[in-house]
Amino acid sequence: MAGQDCIFCRIVAGQIPSTRVWENDRILAFLDIRPISDGHTLLIPKRHAGSLSECDASVLAEMIGVAGPLAKSVVEAAQAEGYNLLCNNGRAAGQLVDHVHFHIIPRRSDDGVLARWPHKEYPAGKAEEMAGKIRDHLAKS
Amino acid sequence: MAGQDCIFCRIVAGQIPSTRVWENDRILAFLDIRPISDGHTLLIPKRHAGSLSECDASVLAEMIGVAGPLAKSVVEAAQAEGYNLLCNNGRAAGQLVDHVHFHIIPRRSDDGVLARWPHKEYPAGKAEEMAGKIRDHLAKS
Repeated sequence: MAGQDCIFCRIVAGQIPSTRVWENDRILAFLDIRPISDGHTLLIPKRHAGSLSECDASVLAEMIGVAGPLAKSVVEAAQAEGYNLLCNNGRAAGQLVDHVHFHIIPRRSDDGVLARWPHKEYPAGKAEEMAGKIRDHLAKS
Repeated sequence: MAGQDCIFCRIVAGQIPSTRVWENDRILAFLDIRPISDGHTLLIPKRHAGSLSECDASVLAEMIGVAGPLAKSVVEAAQAEGYNLLCNNGRAAGQLVDHVHFHIIPRRSDDGVLARWPHKEYPAGKAEEMAGKIRDHLAKS
């Protein structure tokens, strides 16, 4: 899905217009064209990677280093109070473009965004069982 | 807010029990005690940092490198289809514990979690104006 088939690769190549806020040779930050809130920014690697675990480790490290200072400037520019850094992986998780991207979403108190947080509690034994499964998968990975 | 006043510092120190799934000298991953979905995991630096931009860059780089493989194992263990990596910064953004943490939230299609995504579009000129403000703040940072 890289190259001509990927809308973010085409944005990187300048074939689709975008409103850029920061970039270097490896990373691009631009405004989400359909923002959740004013200043909603996307941070992407210029080289195609479908998801977080497919992205080059050094580029990812650089991206997360950029994310903090960039998000502070986004929050200041949007006169917001905080922000969410969000990376959706997989269609079931809301990933619409298969080129890994971090959303930086400026937030204000009681703006109602991302407000559905339907947490529950584990029944007895369930948490340890789940952790055991995760550790097993990690050991095999 | 570090040390005895921080619930995550106390979890790191073993003063509050947690269900650990992975750790090394600098990073700890454990199950969220109030999960959005089974396997919902928190990834934190062991050394206190309030928010993303206050966290040591090398630790943050290591955390994001761990996040991908860890999330894959969480998704497999939870038999999920995808995941959100989410870092809330500031009370307005839903950060409840002032010790930087990444949520890894296993997701299934139509589970209704984080489903409120009320995007809009910028009126003419607004995106460029906002991008200009962000670039100005970045230049001053």
